[in-house]
Parts: sequence; structure tokens; C-alpha cells
Amino acid sequence: MAKKQKTFRPKARTPRGFRDRLGEEIVAERDMLAKISAVYEAHGFDQLETSAFEYTDALGKFLPDVDRPNAGVFSLQDDDEQWMSLRYDLTAPLARFVAENYDALPKPFRRYAVGSVWRNEKPGPGRFRQFTQCDADTVGAPRPHADAEMAMLFADVMEAAGIARGDYVIRLNDRRLLTGLLETTGLAGEGDAETAQRLTVLRALDKLDRLGEDGVRLLLGPGRKDESGDFTDGAGLDAEQIDRVMTFVTSTAATNEETCSRLSEFFAQSETGLAGVEDMKAIAAQAAALGYSEDRVQIDLSIIRGLEYYTGPVFEADLTFEAKDEKGRPVRFGSVGGGGRYDGLVKRFKGMEVPAVGISVGVSRLLAALEFQQSGASAISGPVVILALEKDEMAAYQAMASELRAAGVRAEVYLGGSNFAKQLKYADKRAAPLAVIQGSDEREGGDVTIKDLLLGAALSKDIEDNKAWREDQPAQFTVKRADLAQAVKKTLDRQAKT
Amino acid sequence: MAKKQKTFRPKARTPRGFRDRLGEEIVAERDMLAKISAVYEAHGFDQLETSAFEYTDALGKFLPDVDRPNAGVFSLQDDDEQWMSLRYDLTAPLARFVAENYDALPKPFRRYAVGSVWRNEKPGPGRFRQFTQCDADTVGAPRPHADAEMAMLFADVMEAAGIARGDYVIRLNDRRLLTGLLETTGLAGEGDAETAQRLTVLRALDKLDRLGEDGVRLLLGPGRKDESGDFTDGAGLDAEQIDRVMTFVTSTAATNEETCSRLSEFFAQSETGLAGVEDMKAIAAQAAALGYSEDRVQIDLSIIRGLEYYTGPVFEADLTFEAKDEKGRPVRFGSVGGGGRYDGLVKRFKGMEVPAVGISVGVSRLLAALEFQQSGASAISGPVVILALEKDEMAAYQAMASELRAAGVRAEVYLGGSNFAKQLKYADKRAAPLAVIQGSDEREGGDVTIKDLLLGAALSKDIEDNKAWREDQPAQFTVKRADLAQAVKKTLDRQAKT
Repeated sequence: MAKKQKTFRPKARTPRGFRDRLGEEIVAERDMLAKISAVYEAHGFDQLETSAFEYTDALGKFLPDVDRPNAGVFSLQDDDEQWMSLRYDLTAPLARFVAENYDALPKPFRRYAVGSVWRNEKPGPGRFRQFTQCDADTVGAPRPHADAEMAMLFADVMEAAGIARGDYVIRLNDRRLLTGLLETTGLAGEGDAETAQRLTVLRALDKLDRLGEDGVRLLLGPGRKDESGDFTDGAGLDAEQIDRVMTFVTSTAATNEETCSRLSEFFAQSETGLAGVEDMKAIAAQAAALGYSEDRVQIDLSIIRGLEYYTGPVFEADLTFEAKDEKGRPVRFGSVGGGGRYDGLVKRFKGMEVPAVGISVGVSRLLAALEFQQSGASAISGPVVILALEKDEMAAYQAMASELRAAGVRAEVYLGGSNFAKQLKYADKRAAPLAVIQGSDEREGGDVTIKDLLLGAALSKDIEDNKAWREDQPAQFTVKRADLAQAVKKTLDRQAKT
Repeated sequence: MAKKQKTFRPKARTPRGFRDRLGEEIVAERDMLAKISAVYEAHGFDQLETSAFEYTDALGKFLPDVDRPNAGVFSLQDDDEQWMSLRYDLTAPLARFVAENYDALPKPFRRYAVGSVWRNEKPGPGRFRQFTQCDADTVGAPRPHADAEMAMLFADVMEAAGIARGDYVIRLNDRRLLTGLLETTGLAGEGDAETAQRLTVLRALDKLDRLGEDGVRLLLGPGRKDESGDFTDGAGLDAEQIDRVMTFVTSTAATNEETCSRLSEFFAQSETGLAGVEDMKAIAAQAAALGYSEDRVQIDLSIIRGLEYYTGPVFEADLTFEAKDEKGRPVRFGSVGGGGRYDGLVKRFKGMEVPAVGISVGVSRLLAALEFQQSGASAISGPVVILALEKDEMAAYQAMASELRAAGVRAEVYLGGSNFAKQLKYADKRAAPLAVIQGSDEREGGDVTIKDLLLGAALSKDIEDNKAWREDQPAQFTVKRADLAQAVKKTLDRQAKT
């Protein structure tokens, strides 16, 4: 007898490095992006949506983070043999779009974009191969006004997302200062070794916040052994060079004016450096004139971002409140986005320089910060669940749900069967704030029962202390059917207050 | 001398079959989807976001449209040699998600999803390889209450999107009625020819609306020649069979009750048919009890949808107002979405039947309908443009923009240089409703000039008729700087009224 062939049953599994998000996990991100988009729009930016695919040859390399290895992309060959890749950021599609529509676009061209990007990288904990980016860029505007606007916009975005003034600061540096520093410190050589040395110097500066001056000095010189005993090679600068670099990076003063005055002196011999100082002065002055003082926009010379990419001012949005690191030690929350000026946007396509300046919100970092600050507050509540106890009364239950929705309350009828305990268990799983119950007794009396599920849970958890309170506010009470919506809203309001 | 190597310049181009959307093109869709999502959420549905990729073996075939060739998918092989594909709809990822998380999910499980899907098909005019879907499904709820809820939800979605009551109807049919019809008409044979014949019969029924009874009779019998002379083969039924099929499809009555009563008689000998009639009766009764009468939820026996896919009730959201076809002839706008019950959702993964019922909004069709109805109304206006005439006054201009934004007005400062004509041209390209102008004279006098660009355009177009009006409402006027926000808002209000 022939063996019966077994039906193929694929295993249901999320692809490696990808994830599902349900309900409040996604609502929080959506609401945050809507608020940020509204700020971009108020500032005259128009949303641009491009497709997930770009032709691979048009994608180019626009990754602003110098420390990231050239990120892999997901690519496939189309029917007509052209290679297409999924976008790995939102800037490369902007470059293609601007080059394709250059003559028709208003200039300067302000656009924002929100969407998924894909990276063909090794996934890890909290590191996904698809994630959301949220950028704003101004294309075709010369320095420094567009840069000043961008710094202020970044601050507005933080506040719109829900970060209080005082809990963030937009830090400002300029690529040309770093270039000027390297040039005037004898670090502008062209060989591979010199390039590597420059990178080591800049990485060291980036660690000022974490390691302090002494730690950075070691990294600039012979190298540094950390607490675990691991040794990091240094840049091998001599004492004079180290002093000069340290003088630069410690020029950050409490006021932007003072920082700029120190920098003007420091760069007296460097045209490149002075050009950066001039712009920085103008940006800080314009920001201050509009009320964006050092508590919101501050020059910070230790900010190092995308050095192969940015050509002028660079920004970093930094959260200044304390969080805990993985060992429970207090740390500043840190960066939730960055940006800067880059003039090579469409050069690959058109051979000409078109100046551009942009910011990119670190969506998942900013979300984590909001979650950290508002611990426990959910953006969406579970629905009110109307139990379905009598099979023939479904229309009556749906009418209750409909009334509650009309009153602005999220509501649904249980649709799975008539077992009472199962229905309450369902309401629990849905995180329902309350259940509405109408059995035959209540129906005949023209009543409904409201069961406060949050209070019920609190009572069963903490029953002794709450005796008196429970007598005042029982977890379950009966009202007239006509008063349903009003009673539900009152219960929800009371829950919101406790 | 060596020839200088030419730099490779890729051509900036959108990949074949994909598109860019900017500003109001995307805002209208976004706003519509937000409104629909709010309705889904109010009904207790939670949003589910899955990744763009699924493992190819898990993707399966869930395309509900029988007439569509098995749609191609975009696939690539991951590092670990597993094949992944971009999702071609939102139902296949739902099936995978439910199978993967079956035990943990509340049941019934209500979820909605909004997102891009990809089809590796030949692109054509208005036919893109990436587009947006917007679905709601209830998984694990038995008939017919979840179906009734879905029909009413579909109606609520239409109204939330902006389709007035009376301009749409949710049409209802049932797969089992069609099965019963075919069985009792001798059309249930198992061969390929019989399957093809059944398909021809059902396609003919689907054309009742367009061809009328006589046209459908021809398609059921010998075939039909259309006005252009093209001949469509018929199903080759005999006269008695044709009569029976026509009796069925013309049983659609003005009231759902009458339709059901006719069907009960028609299917007296068919258990399958009667089961469909019973559910339909229950759905229509529950809808009517909640005020969703025949003007919103109507049984229509000519609705043929996804026959290989759906197993019970099927829905179609139909717009009943008149539009014009490509030859300018009046036609009903037609379908903007569909859905139904399918019980094979997770069968491929788990081998068991889990009942599910869902709807899918035809996003681009519904958008086209809204555009058609509100011809010309834009969801987002161009920003107020503040001209930048004096280089040293940028902070003052930004302060104006900031004030206007605080008053709820979209506003931006021109950032591209000081040429006046160029700035006005820019404002025009941005569709700015007005420009704010402060040159040195105005500044010294503490004034600003507001130039109404819509009125200006109207005046220059229609100058003679508007003389008196122009004297009352000049296209350009000056106000005190302190009154800027108020004057701008007044001008925008006046524009909105004309």
C-alpha cells in the first residue's frame, strides 16, 4: 500500500530580524509621528512618500553614520534585469527625487518623510532589519538661515513629541571646526594611516562626556585601559598636539557667545575653522533672538556626527534627564536624533552641488524615552466589553456598543459564545476597563450592570485596606438602561483619576 | 595622454511601476486612513503591524479575487538561504500571525491593519506595484453575529471617510447561495470543463448591473456579441437552466425580508442554500434593528466575490452616485471595497479551521471617489510665505513665522536669497494663500504688508468685472506689525469663504 503523502505545513514564524507589533505597541509610535509631522507641516514642509524600492545604481551611499559599516541592502533583480533595492534610509530616495524633478520643484524645497527603511544586517536584541525613520530636509537653501531654522525645528519637534523644555537640548557643532582643528594640528595628511589616525582622534572627542578629560587624553595619546582591563589603542599624538585638541574640545562654554569668542581666537590662523565659527555665531544669534537660548540650542564641541557626510553645521538632539544603564547606574538618556548640512545630495546624479540641511528623529530611541518618562501610561485603552449572555439579544448588545461609541467610548460586544466566565476572562485579556452585563433579570427590569474591572482587580489584590472605600465604590453596580452611556463615562473618568 | 575616465552618473528615475507622492497627494490618503482607523479602534479592533517580509513558504495564497491571476510576489533569498517575499496583501500576514500566536491571543481576535503591499505584476496606467491596503478582520467568531457587525462596520467606515448616507450601500450575498444554486441546477460536476462552466455562469451574474437580464441570458446560453462586435463565449446552459439561474439572480427585492422569503422558497430543496438564507436573514435583521436598513445594508444576489476564497457571507461596498466613464457616459461609481467570511485562515499552518470574517477598503478607489465628490477641495493648503527682503532681519522674519504657527497658521520664511520677484514666484509655486512683506520702509514704520495671492490671481484674471470689489478688498494692504497674526487669519478666513 502506498504511504499517504503528508500535507506540507509551513511553520508560522516571523522572518529573522523582523517583528510584529500589536495595539498599544504601534499606537504610541503612530501618535508620536503624527505630532512630529504636524510640526513639520506647520513649518512649510510637505510630506514626500517614495516607494520602498529604488534602482540599486540610484541608491548610492548616504548613510550619515561614519561608524556604521556600509550597511547591507535587500536587493533583487526585476523582470527586465534591472537591480532594485529596498531603501535603507529616507535621504537616498530624496536625492533621487530631487535629481529627477529638479527643475519643477520650488527652491528651496522643504520636504519631510516618515516611513520604513530596511537594512540587510545581522539582527540582534532590539536591533531590527526594518524600522521607522522620520526626517525633514531643506534642499537648495544656503547657509546659515536654513541651519538655524533646522535647529529650532528640532527643538519644536522634541516638545511636540512630549519632551519637556529642560529635558532636552539641541547640541550644535560644525564639521569645518573639526577640519580646521585637524589641519592646524598637523593631522591633515592624506595617507591611509593619517585617515585612520584622524578617525581615532574624533572618536576620542566623542567620548568626552563619558570618559572625562583624562580618559580622552589617553585615547589621543598612548591608549587607554578600561575598568574591565580591555585596552583601546590611542591616536599616538604628541603632548603639544594633545593639548591643542583638548583646548579645542574644552572650549565649550556655558554661553554660545563665549564659546564662539574662544573659537574665534583658537582659529585665528584657520580660514576653514573661522568659516565654521561665523556660521555657528549666526545660528546661535538667530536662535537666541527667537527665544531658543542655551537651554535649548547649545554649541557643544564634542558632538561628532557623520564626518564623511556632513559639510557644515551638525546637530544632535540630546535628552538630558537621567535614565539607568543595564547595570542600574544613572546615565543621561542621550541622543534621540541628529542631522546637519551636506552639500553632495544630488552630486552623484547631476554632477553639481546642491546644498541641503536636514534632521532625522531617532524614532525608536525617542519612543523609549517617552515610555521611560511616562512609565505605564498607555496611549490607547482596552475597549469596554459588553457581555453577550442571551443569544437572541445580540442586536440589543450591539445597540449598547453603538451608543457608547457615539459617546466617544471604545466598545465591543463579545462574539464568541455564551459562557459567562469565558467572557469575563476575554474582557480581562483585552484589558477592558469595565464590562457591561445584561442578563434576563436586568433586561426585564430595564437595567444594566456595570462591572469595574480595574477596581475589581485592585480590590482582589488589596482587599483589607480598601474595605471602607469598597463600600463607597463597589466594583459592580446597576443602573437604568437609559443611563448606560453616562454611567460608563463616569466610571471611566473615575478610573482615569485614580 | 591617458583619456580621463568619465564619472558614472546614474539616471535619477522612479523604479518601473512605482511612484512618488508629494504634499496633498499623500495627505488626503493619510487623513482618510486615520478616520477609518479611528472607526476600527472604536469598535474594539487593535492595529497589527507586521513586517514587509514574510517567509515565502508561509505566505501562501490568500488573494480573494478569483479573476486575478495568481499574483506574482517580490522574493529574495536571505543569508541563511531561506526565501523571503514582500507581502502581497494583509491577510496572509494575519494568518501567519494568528497561527504563530494562537494560544496567547484573545478569541475572538479583532485586528485591523493599514499598510503597503507589493505585487510583482506588469504595471500599467494607474496600476502600481506598491499600494495601500486597509483591512479589518474578526478571527474566531462564529456566524452570523460577527458578519452582521462587519457589514455595519463597513457602513460606518464609508461615512467616516466622508461618503454621505445615501451615496453608498453595503451589498450582501452568500457563497452558499451560489453553491446551492449551482448544485440544484446540475452545475456541480467535478471536471475541469464543469469548473470552467461554473466560472462562466458566475461571471455572467456579476454583469447583471451592466448588461441587464437579456445580456446575462445570452452569456448563460450561447454567448454574446457586444457593441464593438467582439464575441464573448457563453456558458452553454439549456433554457431551463438559464431560467433557474435568472430566477435566482432576479430574486433581489427592494426589502431584505422579501428577498429572504423568495430565497427560502427557491432553496426549499437545498440544505446549503438554506443555510446561507438563514444567516442572511439574521444579518439583515440585526442590521435593521440597529437602524442599518436597506438604504445601507442590502442583499444583492448579483454580488460575486472571491469564490475560491470565501465560505459564507460576502460584502461589497458600492458607491451609488453617478460618475462618468472614459467616454463621458454616466456610470455608477461602483465598488470601493469588499470582504466576507473565510474559514481556512490558519488551516495551512495548523490543519484546523478557524472561522474569520473581514473587510478590505479599496483605498485608491475610495480616495478617487472622495476627490470626485469634493472636486478641488484640498486637504492641506500651501504655507503663508514670509518674504526675506533684508538679509539682517532673518530673525524678525522667523519671529513672524513663529507667531503665525502659534496661531495655527502654516507658515515659512523664504530662505533662498533676496530677489523680490523670485520670492513671489516661489510663493506662487508653493500655492501660498498670501505673502507677508516687510521691507525697510515698513519696518521703520512698524508695519507689515499682506499680499493676498489668491485675490491677486483672481483680479489679474478677471480684472474688469471686479473693479468695485477690488476697491473694497485690495489684494495688498498694510497693517501694524502687532496685528500680523490677526490680519493673516482674517484674510485666510475670507479666502475660505469665497
